[in-house]
Amino acid sequence: MILEAAVLNVIAGQEAAFEAAFQQASALIAATDGYNGHQLQRCLEKPSQYLLLVHWRSLEDHTQGFRGSARYLEWRALLHHFYQPFPTVEHYTLVMAQTPKP
Amino acid sequence: MILEAAVLNVIAGQEAAFEAAFQQASALIAATDGYNGHQLQRCLEKPSQYLLLVHWRSLEDHTQGFRGSARYLEWRALLHHFYQPFPTVEHYTLVMAQTPKP
Repeated sequence: MILEAAVLNVIAGQEAAFEAAFQQASALIAATDGYNGHQLQRCLEKPSQYLLLVHWRSLEDHTQGFRGSARYLEWRALLHHFYQPFPTVEHYTLVMAQTPKP
Repeated sequence: MILEAAVLNVIAGQEAAFEAAFQQASALIAATDGYNGHQLQRCLEKPSQYLLLVHWRSLEDHTQGFRGSARYLEWRALLHHFYQPFPTVEHYTLVMAQTPKP
């Protein structure tokens, strides 16, 4: 299991339009083989900054499966014009996780 | 619900020691009122880089509850010497989340 993480800096004033476009774009990523869920989080300290987290079965499901698909062209057209600067996308593997004791 | 996120850059060569110290430090954060789980992720592209994600009931549970506690002094002593540069910690609220269709 791989976690894709990207800090997204959206052009100030375009946050609502970005969030609406992101809702629409979500179906594109969710239709990918190996997709295991995603979330969009908005920063309290910097309200034009978002954190995108996507769970993938493997790195290649993202880098080849999704990015190599026609749906990625739609994703790009919907979202990439909101970003300034263009985000760095990184991938992570879990070291440890803990949940609260019941 | 608040997500605390911090990109942690660990001094190269100290990754294993950091991970062991982090396991030990986890009990300190988990004992905090309002703690709702955390995970440590390691970057594939930059193996000295980690992503810490902590779920909190509220911002203050982290900034006042945990950081104001004696356990935070232990956390700092266990972990802060591994970081170069010192990390920026940010807080996020959920915009949207989606899981795969069954």
